[in-house]
Amino acid sequence: METITTNFSDFQQFIKEYQNDIFLLCDENTEKFCLPKILKEVPYLADYQKLTIKSGEEHKTLETITQIWRFLTENGAKRSSLLVNIGGGVVCDLGGFAAAAFKRGMDFVNIPTTLLAAVDAAVGGKTGFNFLGYKNEIGVFAEPKAVFINVDFFNTLSDENIWAGYAEMLKYGYISSKKLLDETYSLVSHSHCGLDPQSPVLCCHCGLDPQSLENTLSFRLKEEICCQNEISPVGRNDNNLQKIILQDLEIKQYYLKIDKFDKKERKALNFGHTFGHAFEAFSYKTDKPLLHGEAVAWGMVCELLLSHILLNFSKEEVLKLLYFVKENYPVPNFSCKNSQEIFDIMQHDKKNNYNKINFTLLSDIGKVKINQTATKAQIIECLDFLC
Amino acid sequence: METITTNFSDFQQFIKEYQNDIFLLCDENTEKFCLPKILKEVPYLADYQKLTIKSGEEHKTLETITQIWRFLTENGAKRSSLLVNIGGGVVCDLGGFAAAAFKRGMDFVNIPTTLLAAVDAAVGGKTGFNFLGYKNEIGVFAEPKAVFINVDFFNTLSDENIWAGYAEMLKYGYISSKKLLDETYSLVSHSHCGLDPQSPVLCCHCGLDPQSLENTLSFRLKEEICCQNEISPVGRNDNNLQKIILQDLEIKQYYLKIDKFDKKERKALNFGHTFGHAFEAFSYKTDKPLLHGEAVAWGMVCELLLSHILLNFSKEEVLKLLYFVKENYPVPNFSCKNSQEIFDIMQHDKKNNYNKINFTLLSDIGKVKINQTATKAQIIECLDFLC
Repeated sequence: METITTNFSDFQQFIKEYQNDIFLLCDENTEKFCLPKILKEVPYLADYQKLTIKSGEEHKTLETITQIWRFLTENGAKRSSLLVNIGGGVVCDLGGFAAAAFKRGMDFVNIPTTLLAAVDAAVGGKTGFNFLGYKNEIGVFAEPKAVFINVDFFNTLSDENIWAGYAEMLKYGYISSKKLLDETYSLVSHSHCGLDPQSPVLCCHCGLDPQSLENTLSFRLKEEICCQNEISPVGRNDNNLQKIILQDLEIKQYYLKIDKFDKKERKALNFGHTFGHAFEAFSYKTDKPLLHGEAVAWGMVCELLLSHILLNFSKEEVLKLLYFVKENYPVPNFSCKNSQEIFDIMQHDKKNNYNKINFTLLSDIGKVKINQTATKAQIIECLDFLC
Repeated sequence: METITTNFSDFQQFIKEYQNDIFLLCDENTEKFCLPKILKEVPYLADYQKLTIKSGEEHKTLETITQIWRFLTENGAKRSSLLVNIGGGVVCDLGGFAAAAFKRGMDFVNIPTTLLAAVDAAVGGKTGFNFLGYKNEIGVFAEPKAVFINVDFFNTLSDENIWAGYAEMLKYGYISSKKLLDETYSLVSHSHCGLDPQSPVLCCHCGLDPQSLENTLSFRLKEEICCQNEISPVGRNDNNLQKIILQDLEIKQYYLKIDKFDKKERKALNFGHTFGHAFEAFSYKTDKPLLHGEAVAWGMVCELLLSHILLNFSKEEVLKLLYFVKENYPVPNFSCKNSQEIFDIMQHDKKNNYNKINFTLLSDIGKVKINQTATKAQIIECLDFLC
């Protein structure tokens, strides 16, 4: 089980064990925006060998993995060395796999620099890379020794990236409890103006002093709706955000503990991901690639709809999520004539057994049903609904 | 823990679970010499997709791994599929790694077709490939679901290959007990002519009817010394051989059970391998590459010598092994002026921690001392002794 911590003194303490035998992995963005913050707190990290890879899902390839292996071998990394992955999901997944397979396993830690990576890729040990157009086709389960969450890093993210991470946070709400789901929705609702925090219609011009809001994710996400003052997004340290991230990771670790290899209970975490992965994979073929979290947001809509059809999940809750996602996320760029192609991608999903497309659905909020299947007609119906 | 079995009906029973979702991996030799024997017993295996890779250590590369991944992806392999590795150490190591990293882990089984693979690579889960000239630089620990040992396959092996496997069998004797060591030596001594089975001086013209011997490994290994009749090596099913192989694998499984990841007790199995790996790696740069087992035979000589220097291991036992290895194995092709280069290769061994070369040595037969270190002078002394 990974150690999860939110402060640098724990991180310093942790890396002491590795006797100066440490290697750093960044991408060009995290080298510029995040590494300086880390070096400010832990200056001696500057002495270690560092590899900067190209950012972006299109570089989540065997070529980049080979580049990392070459870096480690040529710089004399040993099985007892430590690789520090500083980045989003791509860096965590690539660095994790490269480390897990280097000399049959060197230790690694993740410092997620995106909200999505903090609640998704950095924890849980699903490492790997894309191959022949299939997402994470090659990889292993390998847990980082520790994960360092610092919400400060998220300041430099685009709004799209914040929203992408937020979709995974919503997922934890849906699979665990109404309470957590409400708290998660509350992060982006405008609690100061008296609107129902769970209302999908979010806020208006409220006249509040923007200074009182600028430290909240609410403000970060909703400023353009909440307020007409021209203030650039800042999204500083938000205690509520960090609190809910840690709650989400507790849920993830619970599932990891009882089902590390995703054979049974852990599949709860796949809610939204069967449709979601297909949307994401399909979008790479278009001129509007979706972020993983954006695809998962729409994936959850489809899977709640399927939950309604198959498990009588509340129609009102389906519509609530639909409106919310429609308002805040870019619509996947496909039409009904692409349904067959998306269905084909879903058939290749590695979550499937024996040619059946495998879904994680809900009979109610917090009531997860894994290993659900649907007819092709039902799946196409959900896709057509989106179109 | 792997299931180890020696009969085809167990194998048939085992693969039934995979619902016809099976993929076969061979090399050009095992496709020709071993696959037909398997198909004779399990004819319906012929219906499955098969990949034949090039044989030999020089193909234990990322390119071959990529070829296997491509084969699996393009033929629709799933996480629930089974890969059947039919071959020696290279096929078992490559197929094991490819399967372990395919969709984060599909099941695989090993059918070792060499004596060396049967007692070494096929069991224990050390998968991987060579990278930038370093042996097994990339890989993971991943256990096969089952291992099928059939001594019939060894009939088509060259004498060199039989001897290579036999060196690893001797290793199990040295690390476990005088009893097993004696039994292992007895396999190649000529018990019919009254010579001491443990004598390093092995036999003469005995005048026995060759027919009475041809089914024994003893005969197979020693026929050119034992007997002047011109008979080609046959090495058929040898009950003693199979019995000792299974004893060796019991020892291996004991260590796997208590220390799967080679952190502590399992290092006993590395006896002979620190020098051995270096001899093997160095030999690839010459025109006389050594087989793994040949390198381990000489590695054991050096490590017994080091055991004598550091742990007072019996000098007589060192000499006994030395004479035996000298008589039966090709001498590594290096001179004293290569000692530094071999030392450098040893420094890169992935068994090392914190820049110290790690040895597994013996204070007596069956008395293993892991995590031993030696000075550079002592190591060079052993190398010079060999020269």
